[in-house]
Formats: sequence, C-alpha cells, structure tokens
Amino acid sequence: MQPLSFPPRLLMGPGPINCYPRVLTAMSTQLVGQYDPTMTSYMNEVMELYRRVFNTQNQQTFLIDGTSRAGIEAALISCLEPGDKVLVPIFGRFGHLLAEIAERADAEVHTIEVPWGEVFDPQQIEEALKRIQPKLLAIVQGDTSTTMLQPLEELGDICRAHDVLFYTDATASIGGNPFETDAWKIDAVSVGLQKCLGGPSGSAPMTLSDRFVDCVRKRAHVEAGIRDAHHKSATGQRIRSNYFDLPMIMDYWGDERLNHHTEAATMLFGARECAVGLLTEGQDEVLKRHQFAGNAMLSGVQAMGLQPFGDLKHKMSNVVGVHIPDNVDGEAIRHTLLNTFNIEIGTSFGPLKGKVWRIGTMGYNARQDAVLQTLQSLETVLRRAGFSLSAGEAVDAAMAVYSGES
Amino acid sequence: MQPLSFPPRLLMGPGPINCYPRVLTAMSTQLVGQYDPTMTSYMNEVMELYRRVFNTQNQQTFLIDGTSRAGIEAALISCLEPGDKVLVPIFGRFGHLLAEIAERADAEVHTIEVPWGEVFDPQQIEEALKRIQPKLLAIVQGDTSTTMLQPLEELGDICRAHDVLFYTDATASIGGNPFETDAWKIDAVSVGLQKCLGGPSGSAPMTLSDRFVDCVRKRAHVEAGIRDAHHKSATGQRIRSNYFDLPMIMDYWGDERLNHHTEAATMLFGARECAVGLLTEGQDEVLKRHQFAGNAMLSGVQAMGLQPFGDLKHKMSNVVGVHIPDNVDGEAIRHTLLNTFNIEIGTSFGPLKGKVWRIGTMGYNARQDAVLQTLQSLETVLRRAGFSLSAGEAVDAAMAVYSGES
Repeated sequence: MQPLSFPPRLLMGPGPINCYPRVLTAMSTQLVGQYDPTMTSYMNEVMELYRRVFNTQNQQTFLIDGTSRAGIEAALISCLEPGDKVLVPIFGRFGHLLAEIAERADAEVHTIEVPWGEVFDPQQIEEALKRIQPKLLAIVQGDTSTTMLQPLEELGDICRAHDVLFYTDATASIGGNPFETDAWKIDAVSVGLQKCLGGPSGSAPMTLSDRFVDCVRKRAHVEAGIRDAHHKSATGQRIRSNYFDLPMIMDYWGDERLNHHTEAATMLFGARECAVGLLTEGQDEVLKRHQFAGNAMLSGVQAMGLQPFGDLKHKMSNVVGVHIPDNVDGEAIRHTLLNTFNIEIGTSFGPLKGKVWRIGTMGYNARQDAVLQTLQSLETVLRRAGFSLSAGEAVDAAMAVYSGES
Repeated sequence: MQPLSFPPRLLMGPGPINCYPRVLTAMSTQLVGQYDPTMTSYMNEVMELYRRVFNTQNQQTFLIDGTSRAGIEAALISCLEPGDKVLVPIFGRFGHLLAEIAERADAEVHTIEVPWGEVFDPQQIEEALKRIQPKLLAIVQGDTSTTMLQPLEELGDICRAHDVLFYTDATASIGGNPFETDAWKIDAVSVGLQKCLGGPSGSAPMTLSDRFVDCVRKRAHVEAGIRDAHHKSATGQRIRSNYFDLPMIMDYWGDERLNHHTEAATMLFGARECAVGLLTEGQDEVLKRHQFAGNAMLSGVQAMGLQPFGDLKHKMSNVVGVHIPDNVDGEAIRHTLLNTFNIEIGTSFGPLKGKVWRIGTMGYNARQDAVLQTLQSLETVLRRAGFSLSAGEAVDAAMAVYSGES
C-alpha cells in the first residue's frame, strides 16, 4: 500500500487531459461544513463564476455532483416526462448517448443523423422540429468521437419560433470554442471539467434558463425526510430520479439551502479553480490559445503526410482526428508514444474504431511546447515504424502557425 | 478571484468531517488517461482495497461517481423494476430517503417504522418480510439523523430464508462500527467517504454479491454508441438510468473496460487513500479509536449535565445526539462554537429539528484532542450562556474513558 505514483504523462488525447496545477492545488484544500457560511459563500461564488463561463445571466447555474453524463441525465430526466417528444440530431457517439438517456426516461425519442465527420445544417433541424413538434431539442455542441463542432447560433431562434426547449451538452467544447448561452438562446447546458476547462472528471457545471426552470419546477416534489408543511408538491409527474431532481438541487444551491446531497466539496474546489483560471486568463485569450494549438497540431499532422478526418470547417479547435495510414499499426504507434515518450493520444469509437487517432490540445495542454513535443514524438515513432515522411516538417509547420507565418 | 481560503474548522458534526491529510494530498495527484495501464491497475487495486473495507470476497466492488445517495440510487434503480416489491424499515431520515428513491423507481414500496431514537428487532422485519414477500429489503445501517445503529447480523439469514435480496446503506457507520458484508450475508451495500472514512463527499464505494449481480445482469443493455454485434441485450426491462446502470458500470470496471463515464480520477485517488489509511491503521484499531472517542464524548456531555438522545445501546460509536436544554438557544450555542472556537457541531432534521444537537467523532476527528477541545469549548459556551454546570467535569469524564478508569 504505497502512495499513488504515476508516470508523468502528457495527455494529448480527447480527454481527460492534465489538470492545471492550480486546480490540483485547490483540490487538496481541507473541508468545512456544508452549511458553513464560508462554504455557502463559495457555492454562491461558483454559481457566479459559471454564469461568466457560460456567458449567461441565468440565476440557476450550479454543479451536478457526477461526471459529465450526470449533467446530461439531470437535464433530460428532469425535463422529459414519459411520452414527451424529444428531437436528438446525432452526429457522433454522444448524440447516441443523449438519445439513449432520453429513451430510458421513456420519452418519445426522434433522431436524425448525419454521417460521422459532418454536422447539421440548421434547416435540417428546423425541418425536423416542424415535423415532430417536440418538447425539447437535445444536441451536442462538440462531439469528441468525431471532433466535429455543431454550430448552435441559429438554433435558439428556431426553437423559440416553434416553442421548443433547447438543451446542449458542451462538455467537449466549452472553454476551447465560443459558447454563448444567452446570445444563442440556449435553455439548458451541461458540461464537464475534464476537457478544455482543465480539471478532473467528476463535476458537471450546468445552467438553466427561466423557461427551463419553469418546466422542471412543475415536477417539484420535496423528499419525505425533510418535507415541511409549507412544501407544496407540484402537479407534474414526480421526477424519476432523486439524485438528478433539478428542483431539489436548485433548492440546495438556493437561499432555502434545503438538504439534498452533501456537496462534493473537493470537486467544487476544483470546479471553482477551473473557472477562476479561465476567467483570469480571459475567455478570449483562452480561445485564442486553443485556436493556435489546434491549428498548429492540424498543420503539423498534415505536414507529416497524415490526413485529417472530417469536415475541417466544423472541427473543434481542441481535437483533431487523423486517419491511421495504411500499413501502420495504429495501436502499436499509440503504445510506443505512451511507453517511450509518456505521451497519450486517443483511439476512436464505433465506425472510426481502428481507423482514426484523436489528438487533443485542451486546457492546460493547449500549449506550444505540448504541441511541438507531441508532433516530434509522433514523427519519430512513425518514422521508426517505416512510415515515409520528411523529418522536421511537422514541427516546422506548427511553429509557422505560432509565428503567424501560416 | 482569490485562492480558496477557509477558517481551520474542527468538524464535529454528523459529517462531512475534516479529511485525513493523506487523503487531501492524494487528491492533488496529476492525472493519467482513463485507460492508461497505470490507471486501470489502480482501479483494480481500489476494488481490492474496498473488498477488505467491506469484508467481502465479492468480485463486484467499485465506486459510483457521485455522493452517497448516488450509490443508493444505483443499487435500487438497477435492482427494482417498476412494480417490484421492496420493504424499507424506517428509523430516521435516511430510511425515508431509501423509500423515496424506490418510489421514484415505481417500485411497490412497503415501509415499517419505529420512533426516531429506536431500532428494529429482527423479528419485526421478518414478520414484515413474510407478509409482504418483497424482492428486496433495503435498510440503513446507521442513520445519522437519529444516531442509531440498526443491528444487521441476523437479517441476512432471514432474507435468504425468504429469498429476499438484502441492501444496506452504511454511509454513516462504515469504518466506525463493525460491518461484515459476507458474514452477515448482505447482497449490496453502498457508502460514502465523508463520515468515518475521512474523505470528502463525492464517491460512493459499493459491493454486490453474486445474487445481486445476477439480478441486475438480467437488465443489461449496452448503450447504442458503443454497442458491438456481440453485445446481447438481456431480457429484463432496461434500467431507467444510464448513469446508474450497474451492468454498464461493472463492464467499465471489469476486464472488458467498456466505456461508460470517464472515471472521476481525483475522487478515486481520495477513495483509495481513505481505504489505505483505514487498512494500514487496521480495522480493529480504527474501530477501537472510534469507540473510545464516542464513549468519551458521551461521558463528557453527560458529565456536563446534558441528556443524550435515543437508545444508547444502539447508538453508533461515531455520533451522539444531545437534547438541547430548556432555556438554551441551540442555534446561538452552535454559532458561538463555530465563530469563536472554529468548532462545528450539528443541528437536526425532521422531528428532532431544534431539539437535538448532533456531535460526531468520525474518521480523522475520532481523536482525543478533538474530543477534549470540543467538550471544553461547548462547556465554556454553555457556561457563559448561563447554563449551570460544574466546570471541568466534562473533560475529566472524557479523560477517564481514555485512561480506562470508566
């Protein structure tokens, strides 16, 4: 029973990635009680910090204590009553996940799909909304399985025009790509820390518009053990999950401080520090840093003679898919990168399994040195495996992006 | 946006309590990838460590990424299909929670109750099992709301005799009171870190017997985004939650390493260190330390002229309820203890609200110095508030327990 000990990996896959050191430091902070005024004041601060991260004025902005998919499930299961219609446009693995979670809630789930590597045109989504008339549109912003970034700018107006609520999962994209909750009229969004926010998995920040709050408040039922005479149950069907009951979670984070779970304080400390880091550096600066790193990585792999995957106009800044060349053993390359260079790049799921590597440039690792070291090491491993390339061109191409020459 | 800064509270309430320093240190460990062999090897180690914590040979022993009630919900929602009968004996707030979670799963929930401050006689439970013939018995071991510890030793045999599965929530009791999964024939148990295990809230260790695994495997459905041709769906109704789908969580922790959530690595590091600390000190030693601290605190408050709450024969070692004396403002005392002495003690819920304080001696804080400082400070605050007592008697009584004189 030795202390934890890991090799110093550089995590350049699709996430999780290395945490910012300040986040790790924050997570070793000693606890106070959950209703200690110093704790509740940090809870209020976290709500305000994530309003800024999400670019929203929404009062209801808080953390779900679980991984990213906990945030997704809380949003969907609190909103969707059995039989409610939901439209899920699917352009990768995480679209399937949204549909699956909605199915388990016994919603009437309608899906539309585009091939992996593409995104939807807003008209495709509007056409489906008109046809189906769902209660909710649920769509991923950035699907790491394909590296694609779905444009959301126009979808809010379309949803309002058809009286549809609009949820998005921005786990993979937040912090590395623009995200505007209020300007884009998004009603609910949930994320995780483990991508561009530079924290560990295990906390799911989310924000809810007043429209979304009205929807879930109709299903508010305070649990028996703490219910007082003044707690009226709402008329809507009780939410099927206690853990993901958004009205109870809102009452815990709100002035009422009605006990629900015991806040996962260490995760909250980490989530706070992710937001503080982002806002201190500045959202525009952080987006620019991701853009540079993503462009440099893309130029580098192209200069190495590798083919990027998918529609590059709609690629997330923070991850690139790379076709594994013929006659190259993709897993052997990954293993050598990991074992010899301590660098992790990602494999893929579903139709891309074994065909595409995914290389991330996220959060703390959206740095020039991390990009260059990854390219140099990948080049070395490929070269020594017999893949034909011009040594040095990848890193030169990446440095040209950073120096503004390309 | 300053770094986190808290007063150095001594948390002597019903939990959360101060983390062991070694747990905080572990939680600032930098990450590796979720499928990195060093990470999966620590996952396997965590399974083995918690087998020892739970005193079980169960293969299926792992963490749920969420607070304690996430573990409860995972167990109940994966086991109980709509219409399944469950018996929940309630002796405090957390019994109500089990019933509520089972209701939300649309199980047919049967409850029996004893007054707060008492526990059940096994015959009462057997009589109800015979009458109701449920699929599952779900009962709390230690309910912090009342400080009571339900004896579980005889319930396993009773459940087997009536072909009933046996689940218990041991969040409040584990580590401070004996717990024997296999010897007591318990089929499923879930806990949290934030009581006697001395970690933060946010991870829920659990273990499942083969009987329980058979039950939930009948409902196994691999999610669409990662399903391969060889994944057969089981015949049972799909579990209503993706996040709490135990078959998928087992496949993530098992050799198959089938992607579900991204493991909350920092919480896993904390959970590991809680177990390593407990097992290094030795379970018997830790139980003894809790017993001493609990007895000393009980003797101390009695020597101060305060009345303990409930059936002392069935009190948990790690928390005592104390009747707030007449003419004493319970909340004012708590506030002064917190603000002047940096010591937190707990208030109560439901029928005990405003009537009883709860004073914990858990995990890292099950220490002589913590007990003595709490008693001295409580005495000072009560004395200065006009409560009549003999100064020094509380701490003398506590020290007599430690010196073996009482």
